Amino acid sequence: MKIVAPPEGALLVHEVGLRDGLQMEKLVVPTEQKIAWIEALLDSGIDGVQLGSFVHPEKMPQMADTDRLFHHFTDRGTERERPVLSGLVLNEKGLERGLACGVEVFCMGVSASETHSRKNTGMSIEDANRRILAMAREAKAAGRYVQVSVQSAFGCGYEGPVPMERVLSIVRTYLDAGLASLSLADTAGHATPDRAEDLFARVRVLDPSASWACHFHNTYGLALANCYAARRMGVRIFETSVAGLGGCPFAKVAGGNTCTEDLVHALQRDGLRRDVRLDALLDVARDVARFFGRDMAGSVYRTGPVPVPAPVLAQRS
Amino acid sequence: MKIVAPPEGALLVHEVGLRDGLQMEKLVVPTEQKIAWIEALLDSGIDGVQLGSFVHPEKMPQMADTDRLFHHFTDRGTERERPVLSGLVLNEKGLERGLACGVEVFCMGVSASETHSRKNTGMSIEDANRRILAMAREAKAAGRYVQVSVQSAFGCGYEGPVPMERVLSIVRTYLDAGLASLSLADTAGHATPDRAEDLFARVRVLDPSASWACHFHNTYGLALANCYAARRMGVRIFETSVAGLGGCPFAKVAGGNTCTEDLVHALQRDGLRRDVRLDALLDVARDVARFFGRDMAGSVYRTGPVPVPAPVLAQRS
Repeated sequence: MKIVAPPEGALLVHEVGLRDGLQMEKLVVPTEQKIAWIEALLDSGIDGVQLGSFVHPEKMPQMADTDRLFHHFTDRGTERERPVLSGLVLNEKGLERGLACGVEVFCMGVSASETHSRKNTGMSIEDANRRILAMAREAKAAGRYVQVSVQSAFGCGYEGPVPMERVLSIVRTYLDAGLASLSLADTAGHATPDRAEDLFARVRVLDPSASWACHFHNTYGLALANCYAARRMGVRIFETSVAGLGGCPFAKVAGGNTCTEDLVHALQRDGLRRDVRLDALLDVARDVARFFGRDMAGSVYRTGPVPVPAPVLAQRS
Repeated sequence: MKIVAPPEGALLVHEVGLRDGLQMEKLVVPTEQKIAWIEALLDSGIDGVQLGSFVHPEKMPQMADTDRLFHHFTDRGTERERPVLSGLVLNEKGLERGLACGVEVFCMGVSASETHSRKNTGMSIEDANRRILAMAREAKAAGRYVQVSVQSAFGCGYEGPVPMERVLSIVRTYLDAGLASLSLADTAGHATPDRAEDLFARVRVLDPSASWACHFHNTYGLALANCYAARRMGVRIFETSVAGLGGCPFAKVAGGNTCTEDLVHALQRDGLRRDVRLDALLDVARDVARFFGRDMAGSVYRTGPVPVPAPVLAQRS
C-alpha cells in the first residue's frame, strides 16, 4: 500500500482536493462532475486520491456523496492497478460508513490546537485522541489501512503558535499505538521551511521506520518551499490539491492546499516523477477553474509548463 | 556597502520592483507616485532599493524618470542612514547618465542565453560581456559600487535549458576581472530548489569570498522555495519586488519577481529581519494593487500576516 508505506526512494502524491479543497467551496459540485475529475486524476499516474470525508451531509452538503463516490469506484473491482482511494473520517458513524463503501485508506487526525480541535470536532484534544485510536484499531481490524495526522501542527489561526511538545506528544501516542503512517498538517499555513525541517526532524527520530506525509497550505505563499524542506527531512508523501483548491473552513485564515500540478511540475523539472502525466493534471485544473468561474491558486495551469524548445529542424538542401 | 558586501550573517533585501516590476506594466506610474512608494520602502528598513533602469526613454517610457528619481533622493544628501540606491545600466549612455545622477550601486548583467541576450541588448553574450567589464571598470574608477549578474542563469523562455558551463564561464570572467558582488537571475522562472542549490554551490566554490545575490521569478510558484534553497547555499542578498510586481518583457513567459513582503514575512516567522517594518511593506503592496486596480501576485498583503493571538487578559476578580 504505497501511500501509507512508500517504497524506498519514492516520492508520492496524494490528491486531497476533492475533500480538503471542495469543503471550502460553497458551490456544491455535482457527483457526475466529481467522477469525471476523479477519473482523470486516477489516470494521471499520481498515487492516491481522497474522494471525500464522512461528515454529516447536512453539516457539509459538499461531502454528501462521499459514499456514492466510493461505491462508484470500488464496485468496479480492481481490474487495473490504480491509485489508492482514501477517505477522511471524523467519528464512529463516519468510520461505519467508510467500512461499508470500500475506503482503502482511512485518514483521521487530531488537532494540536485545543481551540481548533473543539471547533472542528467538538472534542478536546485528549478525547479526540482516544476516539482516533479506537477508530484506527477498528479500521485495521477490518483489514483497512490507516493514516493518522496532526492538524494545526505548525500553528493555529485561533491560538497562534502551537507548542512543539504538544505535537510530539500526539505523535508519540500514535506511534505507541502501532500507527506508523503519519502526517503533519499545516492547517492554517503557518509553517516555514525552517520550521518544517525542524519539526519533521524531531518527529522522525521518534521512530525512523515510520512513514511521513506532509500537508501544507499556501496561505502565505510557502507551500512548495515547505514541501522541499519536508522532502529534505525524509518526508516522501505530499498531500496536495489540484488547482490549489482548498483550505479548512474551520481555520480562520486558510489559503489553498499545496497545488498538485505545481508540485509535480517542479519534481519533473528535477527529473522526478516523470511517470505522472502532468498534462492530465493541468486539464483537471483548467476544468476546475472553469467550473468555479474564477482563477484558482495554482500557477502552472495558467502559464503552462516550462516550454520544451522546438527541435532544430534539419535544413533542406 | 551592505548590498554588495553583506556583513557576516546578514540576510539582505534588495527591492527591485520599481525597475524589474514596473517595466512589465503598460500603465506608466507618475514620478510623484513612484517617489511616495520609494519613500515608504526606504523607511521600511530593507537594505537596497533599485530606482529604475537607464534605458532609452522611448524604448521604455516607464523608466523615463530614472535620473529624476535619483536626483530627488540623492540631492537631499545622506542626513540619515538609508538603504542603498541602485540602478540598472545596459550600455555606456546609461552609465554616463547614472554617474551624473548619483547611482550608488550599478547593477549590470549578461544573459547566459544567446537569444535572450540579443533580444534584450542587441548583442551576443561575448560582446555584452566585454561591454559590461568596461562599464564596471569605469563605474568603479568613479568610486561607485558594482553588482554584476547572470540573467537566464537557470533557463531561458526562448532557448529552454541553459548549459551550466556557460553560466560558470560568465561568472569566471567576472571574478577574473575583480568583480566580487554577483547575482544569478532566473529571468524566466525555470529554477527549482534543487537546481538553485546545485548552481549556487558550483559558483560559490569558484571564489568563496565573493558575495552572492539571487533573483527569482515566481512564474511556476517556486520563487520562495528557491530563495530558501539559495540561502542554504550561502546566498545572503535577495532581489525581490513589492507586491510581487514584475517580470521581464523580453522573456516569453515571465511571472512576477519573488514578493518582497512575502519573503520578509517568512524570514520574520523564523526570527530573522525583525528590524524590517513589515506593515510598511504591506501598505506599499496594497497601494500598488490599488494603483493598478488588480490583485497582485503577493499573498501576505491580501491575507495579512500570521496573526499574533490576543493576549489573555487578567481576569477581573
